[in-house]
Amino acid sequence: MSEADAAATLWPLIDAETMGIATHGLIRVPAYAKRLRLGGIDATGKIAIERRAPSLALVDGGNATGTAIATRALDAAFEMAAETGIAYVGCRHSNHCGALMPYGLKAAESGYVFIGGTNASTTMPPWGGAEARIGNNPICIAAPIAGGPHFLLDMAMSVAARGKIRAALAAGERIPADWAVDDRGRPTTDPAAALRGFLSAMGGHKGSGLSQAIDILGGALSGAQFLTGIASWADHPELPSNIGHFFMLLDPGRLIGKDAFADAMARFRDIILTTPPADPARPVMLPGQAEQERRRQAIANGLTLPKDLVDEIHALAAA
Amino acid sequence: MSEADAAATLWPLIDAETMGIATHGLIRVPAYAKRLRLGGIDATGKIAIERRAPSLALVDGGNATGTAIATRALDAAFEMAAETGIAYVGCRHSNHCGALMPYGLKAAESGYVFIGGTNASTTMPPWGGAEARIGNNPICIAAPIAGGPHFLLDMAMSVAARGKIRAALAAGERIPADWAVDDRGRPTTDPAAALRGFLSAMGGHKGSGLSQAIDILGGALSGAQFLTGIASWADHPELPSNIGHFFMLLDPGRLIGKDAFADAMARFRDIILTTPPADPARPVMLPGQAEQERRRQAIANGLTLPKDLVDEIHALAAA
Repeated sequence: MSEADAAATLWPLIDAETMGIATHGLIRVPAYAKRLRLGGIDATGKIAIERRAPSLALVDGGNATGTAIATRALDAAFEMAAETGIAYVGCRHSNHCGALMPYGLKAAESGYVFIGGTNASTTMPPWGGAEARIGNNPICIAAPIAGGPHFLLDMAMSVAARGKIRAALAAGERIPADWAVDDRGRPTTDPAAALRGFLSAMGGHKGSGLSQAIDILGGALSGAQFLTGIASWADHPELPSNIGHFFMLLDPGRLIGKDAFADAMARFRDIILTTPPADPARPVMLPGQAEQERRRQAIANGLTLPKDLVDEIHALAAA
Repeated sequence: MSEADAAATLWPLIDAETMGIATHGLIRVPAYAKRLRLGGIDATGKIAIERRAPSLALVDGGNATGTAIATRALDAAFEMAAETGIAYVGCRHSNHCGALMPYGLKAAESGYVFIGGTNASTTMPPWGGAEARIGNNPICIAAPIAGGPHFLLDMAMSVAARGKIRAALAAGERIPADWAVDDRGRPTTDPAAALRGFLSAMGGHKGSGLSQAIDILGGALSGAQFLTGIASWADHPELPSNIGHFFMLLDPGRLIGKDAFADAMARFRDIILTTPPADPARPVMLPGQAEQERRRQAIANGLTLPKDLVDEIHALAAA
């Protein structure tokens, strides 16, 4: 892999790590390396950008690393939005692109409103179903706020992460009925039955529908796979995932105007942050505020990483 | 009001009624009429469309009816997307624009992928808050499916509607802890405390964040009001709401191609509809499928309306 591709592959993982999103941080380096060795990801895959219209592009990722593909796609979106004030880029033949928050933050830091999403292999049933046919597809919406923190929402569709169900099982506790369904699609409060079953989407039919919408915007519209067409990188690390992503940018300067938008977003921030909190010890925060604060501290003070992970990355670099 | 403005005002209400969305159907005619009489909505308000870039427009609704403003905005989006394959239109100085589903359906029927949203007066606290500072802002995402039903997701952010809490109170039942918080922002299972408090957003911080994102896309970016800046039409029917909406269109023909997208969406539909259901009596459906089926039946067989409502509308027409 070229140094440029390696840098494009790594920065979203490093950024996520600084934000405290360790699940999408440097722990992914060994996972990506495993798939690169097995040929599931192509280290020399050619990323081809096809400009379809002044504000529209499709990226064929050539099965390169998903983070490098997403980085190139976002760059293409920046180029188009600088010219036209709006951009949509869809990516096909891609792989896991890390957390979306680093891309959203980059867009907000550049003054753009950002909407991005990616599909993923199926882990949840659609609403009312008893078989995993939709992914826990995340969406990220970001907007610049002068003086910060930027508005930076990054959310997946499940009510709870699988890790929280495992923790309940270990602690001998029941789980809320809306966290998961059993293997026949019935809501359950038994963590063991939940782990044999499926995660539930937040808001029932709402999260289920939004997951599908993200799959259409990132998958069907870009020519990538979607729904059950996506190979699971966990079960089949040797197979290309053909995951799809999308990134959209809007330039506030070309709409209501840069200054008017900055004024509006400063007011927006202040209204949210001055909301009386339910718990006086926990002030109301903006989406992504905690992650941006952690990032500031990590940049100032450095990162703490598990020694095992650092050793593993050093071993990979030496191999 | 001109006949054209009246038609633009009414079709989204009629369409919603055919879809079985009675809360956003013809019941709104008397509500809109009341605000028109009080001057809260301006029957002769001038709707001005400002093209800011080939794919970007802002609409100043001039405090006309929100449905007429949204209709003109969607028309402007169609014009731009026909030329460039993509469009964003933001509306300010608008009012309640009815349900979003009629606009999404119109876009899907015209072959476009649609993302639309509107803000609303504050009814929920942001996550962790004890005061209503965000709206129950809906988002609609639609995509055409040849042979139908079209993909047609229209969702607001609250877990449950207030009506369901009133029903629980009347039935003497508790409510799930994630439906609402009391007047100090604490989760409650007591429907009476919930009605003195606030609706909760689905997924906790997720729905709270998504509501804010919709407010930015439709409110801050268009120059409309947002968050606590929006006047409640229920409390102050005589005041302009200055609500904001946004509509985005993407042309699949300019991206992966019309035929490839049609093939993909047919597969998409089939994967969802063939999901084994948790309850054999309730097949898995696409978002908006039930509403499109009701609409088909209403067009074939006519609508049933409450006599009181019909009488009220006739009285308004005669006045």
